[in-house]
Amino acid sequence: MSRLFVTNDDTICALATPPGSSAIAVIRVSGADAFAVMKEIFFPRNKDFDPDKVPGHTIHFGMIKDGDDVLDEVLLSIFRKPHSYTGEDSIEISCHGSPYIQERILHLLIRHGIRQAQRGEFTLRAFRNGKFDLSQAEAVADLVAANSSSSHQLAISQMRGGYSEKIRELRKKLIHFASLIELELDFSEEDVEFANRTELDDLLREMKAEITRLIESFAHGNVLKSGIPVAIIGKPNTGKSTLLNAILNEEKAIVSDIPGTTRDAIEDTIVLEGIAFRFVDTAGLRYSEDRIESMGIERTFEKIRQSRIILYLFDVSENSCETVLNDLDAFRNEMIEKIGLDEWESKTLIIIGNKIDKLVEIPRHFRDFVEMKCLFVSAKRKENLAMISDSLLEAVKADHPDDSIMVSNTRHYEAFTRTLAALDRVMSGFAGNVPTDLITIDLRDALHNIGEVTGEVTTEEILQNIFGSFCIGK
Amino acid sequence: MSRLFVTNDDTICALATPPGSSAIAVIRVSGADAFAVMKEIFFPRNKDFDPDKVPGHTIHFGMIKDGDDVLDEVLLSIFRKPHSYTGEDSIEISCHGSPYIQERILHLLIRHGIRQAQRGEFTLRAFRNGKFDLSQAEAVADLVAANSSSSHQLAISQMRGGYSEKIRELRKKLIHFASLIELELDFSEEDVEFANRTELDDLLREMKAEITRLIESFAHGNVLKSGIPVAIIGKPNTGKSTLLNAILNEEKAIVSDIPGTTRDAIEDTIVLEGIAFRFVDTAGLRYSEDRIESMGIERTFEKIRQSRIILYLFDVSENSCETVLNDLDAFRNEMIEKIGLDEWESKTLIIIGNKIDKLVEIPRHFRDFVEMKCLFVSAKRKENLAMISDSLLEAVKADHPDDSIMVSNTRHYEAFTRTLAALDRVMSGFAGNVPTDLITIDLRDALHNIGEVTGEVTTEEILQNIFGSFCIGK
Repeated sequence: MSRLFVTNDDTICALATPPGSSAIAVIRVSGADAFAVMKEIFFPRNKDFDPDKVPGHTIHFGMIKDGDDVLDEVLLSIFRKPHSYTGEDSIEISCHGSPYIQERILHLLIRHGIRQAQRGEFTLRAFRNGKFDLSQAEAVADLVAANSSSSHQLAISQMRGGYSEKIRELRKKLIHFASLIELELDFSEEDVEFANRTELDDLLREMKAEITRLIESFAHGNVLKSGIPVAIIGKPNTGKSTLLNAILNEEKAIVSDIPGTTRDAIEDTIVLEGIAFRFVDTAGLRYSEDRIESMGIERTFEKIRQSRIILYLFDVSENSCETVLNDLDAFRNEMIEKIGLDEWESKTLIIIGNKIDKLVEIPRHFRDFVEMKCLFVSAKRKENLAMISDSLLEAVKADHPDDSIMVSNTRHYEAFTRTLAALDRVMSGFAGNVPTDLITIDLRDALHNIGEVTGEVTTEEILQNIFGSFCIGK
Repeated sequence: MSRLFVTNDDTICALATPPGSSAIAVIRVSGADAFAVMKEIFFPRNKDFDPDKVPGHTIHFGMIKDGDDVLDEVLLSIFRKPHSYTGEDSIEISCHGSPYIQERILHLLIRHGIRQAQRGEFTLRAFRNGKFDLSQAEAVADLVAANSSSSHQLAISQMRGGYSEKIRELRKKLIHFASLIELELDFSEEDVEFANRTELDDLLREMKAEITRLIESFAHGNVLKSGIPVAIIGKPNTGKSTLLNAILNEEKAIVSDIPGTTRDAIEDTIVLEGIAFRFVDTAGLRYSEDRIESMGIERTFEKIRQSRIILYLFDVSENSCETVLNDLDAFRNEMIEKIGLDEWESKTLIIIGNKIDKLVEIPRHFRDFVEMKCLFVSAKRKENLAMISDSLLEAVKADHPDDSIMVSNTRHYEAFTRTLAALDRVMSGFAGNVPTDLITIDLRDALHNIGEVTGEVTTEEILQNIFGSFCIGK
């Protein structure tokens, strides 16, 4: 990967559309030589065409030739710097969607000195050329991966600016104060105060409040991005797999009704009213003999701990009311013991009596369960499944903060958390009359960490982590 | 499918790039309402943008919005009729390569009255609007499917005109004569000859020669398009599968060295110097106990009959020279009996002694096999496999006619064959003084059949067959 971060001044190319056969494919070329190479391989129908002279944002028909071989008839889109995705001179070649042609054209470009782009390198260049900041670049990848209305809205709002502006503004003010305080150090003998302590205190409080709010939004933002985690738990043979399949299949019939678009298969995820619910791997989530199974206990607790919602399943045809209540109490107590009451209560428990198909009517003794809002369903016959969907939605709708600016990126969350800790040290430093030179260290630390979010401060390692997870051509 | 052929005046849309996640995806919209709908869903950065007024072949940045929801930031390419692929007003929306976004945009277009396109419908419209003829439209599909240099060159030369012009020219002349001859019928009492018989005869001979040449090119053209068929035959345990895998794997290491492009997996095909060799299903091709195995004999002969090259394998470590020669003779005689000497001799037989790894040296008695150009290899150790590649190439290089205009499409081949038969009937009709009104029937038949190639004559059924095999968005 090292090559990626060494140079920014060569010209790169990559397939920008998915591999495979289709109507058309698009190959991207970006960099100083983009136009020059076109003069060698592109033969326009309009003989007057000169890539150096035609206006940007125009499209030109012609042939791509490798020597005498016509590789394809293509459309060439011209983008002039800085008005391109990368901010550099760029070309998009729209060719026939044949893998053979794509490969031939890419080989031809490479033979003409253009380099195959690394993952995310187009977006990296856009970032380096100031087309957008790092948090916006990250949102581009989130946008491509978004699979629900809520994760999509999160990504697009972040890509379009999100909290970047706010962060930059706060950081700018903090830089101003930091520089004043560092100035004081130079005059430390004279005991002057260039930085107004009250104003600084106000700013620190404002920043802390803002950053705390962003940190607190992460739990929900992250869940919106990757789906609300739901665990299905129950004794063996209560129908957990049948229920899961019934819920998933119900949904799959709705998804993807347009031929030609195939939603990426997202294992065990359903989308209800734009919100994704992700069923966590329930392989280990068996609760039997009044104990969570000994096999992989810790892993099982971990899965439940990660879940926002727990579907607790019992077999309505085989259990007395008393057994069910006892089992449920045992499970609840064990969970509280393991994860604590607060965390337990932050989750939604949905109790489901399955296999009503085996009964003529629900036994009278279960009627009391209505108080517990127990749902009676038949996974096998797909009866009452809509009640489960409704309960899932009801559980999370209360979570939705009105404010749409949310942190969904773990890297940002961590940077904000470090920033907050540094700001806390700064404040207690001032309160405790800690020497100014020590406080400035924490101030710089806060500045550094908050700057990492938008990429005003960055390291090669951070860039590598971020752009290495992009797809090629992005 | 019927809807496809009813109307040409609504507006259609489809994803034109492969499904899946990627940097970008392209959605095509074509038809009279293409621009009007953009006014409702596209919000340009440049407020002066008006899709009805901006010049064609220009690109515009903006947002696609569904009500207040920003679906994506996109580039909009504008094509004004007739200067578009379909010949109609067209739009290409270049959005982020997210399946979720693609689906949302397609749904939005459909809600605005645009219809999801059928397979090949964009190309069908291009054909109907005279952008190209039917044989060129078919070449578009061949181009996307092409996987070797030779199949690619065939498709591109046909897409760029190929024999269309020649055919149209001949047909035009024949129409002229046919109309003169039909005129004679109106004056049949007067015994006049409007059509010069010598000129007509010359034209018929010219057409026959041309069409015969095209028909004869089919055997080779078809093979170039779909790959040279190669059969591997041999007794059990001579290492047929090992050899096949060794040849295929050797090749796969070369293919697809550019990340981001995945060549469509073509089962059992290798490409040598731009020519594809397709190994026919060899499951049934076992030759044992001096007879082709009784199981599926007919199918086995059929496979061998379809092959251009036969790799005949024997185990060099287990057989005496005599056994091998006897087996070979028996096989040869049986084949000649089944398919006839001429057809047998049109094939290339490559004799391969496998498992040289089991010997210290090749036994002296096999030295005579050199005369038979027998290749000694080890499939297991991948020794001498290049000799096989060389022999494969050598076998077909002689086939290559210099003329690049070749028929590779079965539909064209059949139409040409019917045309030739009709022309033969016309000629013998003239020679035998058959009444002119009978001859005109054959003339019309010839015109009809040759017109089917370029689509000057066509039926809904033909169109359905052709465009139904296209991908959506093409």
